Amino acid sequence: MFFSVTMSLDGFIAPEWRSDEQWLQQWLGLQDFVVHQKFFRENLKLGEGGETGVDNTHLERTFQRAGVSIMGKRMFDAGEHSWPEEAPFHTPVFVLTHKPRAPWERPGGTVFHFVNDGIESALRQARSVARDKDIRIAGGAQTIRQYLQAGLVDEFHVALAPVFLGEGIRLFDRMDPKKLSLSTTEAVHSPRVTHLRYAVKAR
Amino acid sequence: MFFSVTMSLDGFIAPEWRSDEQWLQQWLGLQDFVVHQKFFRENLKLGEGGETGVDNTHLERTFQRAGVSIMGKRMFDAGEHSWPEEAPFHTPVFVLTHKPRAPWERPGGTVFHFVNDGIESALRQARSVARDKDIRIAGGAQTIRQYLQAGLVDEFHVALAPVFLGEGIRLFDRMDPKKLSLSTTEAVHSPRVTHLRYAVKAR
Repeated sequence: MFFSVTMSLDGFIAPEWRSDEQWLQQWLGLQDFVVHQKFFRENLKLGEGGETGVDNTHLERTFQRAGVSIMGKRMFDAGEHSWPEEAPFHTPVFVLTHKPRAPWERPGGTVFHFVNDGIESALRQARSVARDKDIRIAGGAQTIRQYLQAGLVDEFHVALAPVFLGEGIRLFDRMDPKKLSLSTTEAVHSPRVTHLRYAVKAR
Repeated sequence: MFFSVTMSLDGFIAPEWRSDEQWLQQWLGLQDFVVHQKFFRENLKLGEGGETGVDNTHLERTFQRAGVSIMGKRMFDAGEHSWPEEAPFHTPVFVLTHKPRAPWERPGGTVFHFVNDGIESALRQARSVARDKDIRIAGGAQTIRQYLQAGLVDEFHVALAPVFLGEGIRLFDRMDPKKLSLSTTEAVHSPRVTHLRYAVKAR
């Protein structure tokens, strides 16, 4: 199981929500490298073209690798309003929630399943449909931390953006230093972002 | 002017102070790569040997580049008790403080000067003695942030350690996203740490 997120240099994976231009600007500042990539454009059917360098490779690796996704309810709620009708996952997605809800099928192969008996149950259900592919924790930060601190994450990718957000949703918040042992497996930068990969062991 | 610090993956450059073993362990976990380096051993006269790879190169670059250092009073106070008699700077050091104090000369070329009229005065005084070398902000986090947010830093180096501290002294705290524009100039990792370099422009 892995996760892959874009993080600002001051540690945030999303700006503090505001219903104004500032939020959008900060979000675009953070995710700037993604929208220029060929893979992103193809995946969302935005048309031809786009960059094909190191950023595109990392984006493509993430998407090809995941046979199934897990996400938290807050990320699902935000996405439900903003994903296109053909949601960009094209896999089963297990959503951690407290309320029962029937599966929600979208065009293009994305099916959202709602799990209300905890992160380990979601992981078991994800495993049963992942076949030869990996399981991606799509987010948000709280869901990622829950799986990470439980020792269930094997590897992660952080695209470190050379921007400050000042405030927002912090990825690594109140981590327990005694629980995990990390090793750096990759560090490579493009003009837009630095790709960092870590292998994780519970201790 | 530049700075060079080691930062945990969750954004801290020092653990929360505790007068126990846990503090020392966390500090050593964070600074682990430094103590193994040939340059560190030579600089502190700890004897022969040590690693000579990418970590040593970055450490050496930092020290060779700095003709003068600036530090905050809290860092000075902590160091005054823990630096060896022959302090490891071997340059003039300007200490930001509120109390006047006569210069304090240590064996081996380190002289501490106390500045009580602000960060720009310290910078002017540092410039006047830097000759053909650069000015390093030695720390701590608050002093680094003051110079960074004032648009006075040209470049910085973060050695990103693959550890979590959970709490402590955060390097990039409440940064103003509108003040600075960063670009990544280097990202390279050793088995111990990832070296990240950024060029800074005020905007």
